[in-house]
Amino acid sequence: MNARVSEFDLIARIRARAATRGDVRLGIGDDAAIVAMPPDRLLAIAMDTLNVGVHFPDGTAAADLGWKALAVNLSDLAAMGAEPAWCTLSLSLPNADAVWLDGFLDGFFELASQHRVALIGGDTTRGPLSVCATVHGFVSRQGVLRRDAARVGDDVWVTGSLGDAAAALHEWREGGARSDALRARLDRPTPRVVAGRALAGLAHACIDVSDGLLADLGHVCRASRVGAEIALADLPLSAALSVAHAPTLTRQWQTAGGDDYELCFTAPPTARLAIEDAMLACDTSATRIGRIVAKPGEVVVRDADGEVWMPTEQGYAHFVE
Amino acid sequence: MNARVSEFDLIARIRARAATRGDVRLGIGDDAAIVAMPPDRLLAIAMDTLNVGVHFPDGTAAADLGWKALAVNLSDLAAMGAEPAWCTLSLSLPNADAVWLDGFLDGFFELASQHRVALIGGDTTRGPLSVCATVHGFVSRQGVLRRDAARVGDDVWVTGSLGDAAAALHEWREGGARSDALRARLDRPTPRVVAGRALAGLAHACIDVSDGLLADLGHVCRASRVGAEIALADLPLSAALSVAHAPTLTRQWQTAGGDDYELCFTAPPTARLAIEDAMLACDTSATRIGRIVAKPGEVVVRDADGEVWMPTEQGYAHFVE
Repeated sequence: MNARVSEFDLIARIRARAATRGDVRLGIGDDAAIVAMPPDRLLAIAMDTLNVGVHFPDGTAAADLGWKALAVNLSDLAAMGAEPAWCTLSLSLPNADAVWLDGFLDGFFELASQHRVALIGGDTTRGPLSVCATVHGFVSRQGVLRRDAARVGDDVWVTGSLGDAAAALHEWREGGARSDALRARLDRPTPRVVAGRALAGLAHACIDVSDGLLADLGHVCRASRVGAEIALADLPLSAALSVAHAPTLTRQWQTAGGDDYELCFTAPPTARLAIEDAMLACDTSATRIGRIVAKPGEVVVRDADGEVWMPTEQGYAHFVE
Repeated sequence: MNARVSEFDLIARIRARAATRGDVRLGIGDDAAIVAMPPDRLLAIAMDTLNVGVHFPDGTAAADLGWKALAVNLSDLAAMGAEPAWCTLSLSLPNADAVWLDGFLDGFFELASQHRVALIGGDTTRGPLSVCATVHGFVSRQGVLRRDAARVGDDVWVTGSLGDAAAALHEWREGGARSDALRARLDRPTPRVVAGRALAGLAHACIDVSDGLLADLGHVCRASRVGAEIALADLPLSAALSVAHAPTLTRQWQTAGGDDYELCFTAPPTARLAIEDAMLACDTSATRIGRIVAKPGEVVVRDADGEVWMPTEQGYAHFVE
C-alpha cells in the first residue's frame, strides 16, 4: 500500500496542492518564499511542533494530524487577534509514503482553505514523525491581544467549552475512544480565528487554552501582574462531556486538561454587550467564568459554596516526568 | 551532570539570552511574536530542520548544532539576497538538559549576533533531538535572487570552496575526523549572507549548495529552462582538502557532496568586474566555474581534456534508500 517516493517527489506533491494568494510573490520551490506585507499592519509569527507519542497518539489518522498541526498554530494567531496569511511546514517522516502524505495534506488544506492560508515553504526530512509549522498573520497596531494586558476588574471569558479533548485522550489511554464527539475535539480542534479577530479592540488580554485553563490563565496573570477568581460552576461544559463522564472527572479536564484551543480573554465589564454581539456575529459561544483581581499571579477557583477548589493535577508540561 | 528542568524553565533560559531589535514589538513569551516590516521591502521566509542521525552525527557538540541550525537557514536567505532579521526556533529534545541547552544557545547566538538576528519565538518539545528554525529577512523588490532567472550566456560562479564538509563526513564515517579544518566546515558552515546581499542586483540566479553542486545547479537549470557546462578543473578546492585526500575522492565531494553552504550563482559576463569588486569588498572568494547553455535542464561537467565527466553518485536525497 505504501508508495515510496523521493524527497523531491514529496515536495512536488505538496507544491501541486498549495493554493496561493496575491501577496505571495514566490511560493514553494526556491530557497525562501517571498511575500509582501500590507502597509500599516504588524506581522504576527507563531511556531508550534507536534511530535508522535507526545502531542498525538501513534496511529492518529494522517488527515487529522494535518488539520491539527495547522490548527494549533492558527490558535496562537487567534489569541493575538491576527488575520492568518502564510504558513511554512516542516514534515519529518519515518518513510516517504505518498499515500500518507496525501491524507495529511487533505486535512491540512481543508483547514488552510477555510482561513485563506497559503502554504509557502518548508522542508521534508527523514526522522520520527513530527510536524512543525510556522504561521504568519496580520494585526493592526492598536488591536494586538497580549497576555500582559489584563486589568483588575476585568471579566474573564472563555469561548466554546472546556475539557472535551482531555476526556478523549483519557478514553484513548483507557483503551479506545468511546465518544466520537469528544474524539473529534481532540483530533480536529477549531482554532478561534474569527472570534480572535472580533475581540481585537474589545478584549484586553487573551491566550489560547492549550496547556489547561488554569495554567494558561496563570500565564496571563503573571504577565499582567494580577490574579483571577474563577467560578467552577460557570465553566462551560459540552453536552457530550456531561453525558459521558462524572463531574469529578470533567472538572479536572475543564480546569487542567489542555488541548482545548479555546480563547481565554479578559475584558472590562463595560464591553459585555459588545462582546456578546461580536461572538454572536461569528457564531461562537463565549462564557464569563470569573474576574481579574489584584492578587498577583494567583488563580483561585471557587465551588458553588464559595470554597476554594483545586484540581488534583496542574496543567500540561512536556518535560515533567 | 545533567540539569533537568521544566519546559517553562527551558523557555526562560532561552528568553533571557535572546537579543532584540527595534522592529520587534513583542518577542518570546506570548502566543505569537509581533514584528514591524520596513516599508518598501519584501519579506523572505525560509525554514529548515536538522534531525539527529540524518543531518548531523549523534554526538555533535551542542554549540556546533546551535550554530549549524541557524547557519543552514541563513544560507537560504543569503541565496535570495536577503538581509536577515528574525528567527523562530523549535527544539525537540530527548530530555530537558539545561547544560546542553546552554551550549546550544552559545553556538546559536554567536552566529545570530553576527547577523543581528533576533530570536522571537518558537517552542520546546520532548522528542528525538531535532532543531527546526524559520528565518525571516528583507529583500528589495528589484534585488531578489531567484532560481529561475539564469540566462543563456551567463557565467556560473561559486563562492568559497567545495567538498570540505563532505570530506569531513566521510572521515567521521570512517572512524573519526582527521582534519580539524574540514570538520569545522561541516560543523560550522559560513552562511554567505553578506555576499548574497552584495550579489542582489548583480547576479541573475542563485542557490545555496546544500545538496551538492550538480544537484543544486540542476535545480537552477530546470527552474530557468537552461543547461550548464562546468569545468571540473575550475572547481574551487581548499588547501585542507587537497592535502588530505586524493583527486578521485575530492572531485566526488566537490560535485556531489553537499553541506557546502556556498552560493552558486549566474551572472552576465558584463558583470564580472562588478562581481569581483563586490566579493573583494565582503572578503569572499568567488570563482567562475562554467557557463549557462541553451540545453534545458542538463548540467555537463568536462575534465581538462574536454571529455564529459560524471560523479559516481549524484547529490543528496534524504529519502533515497
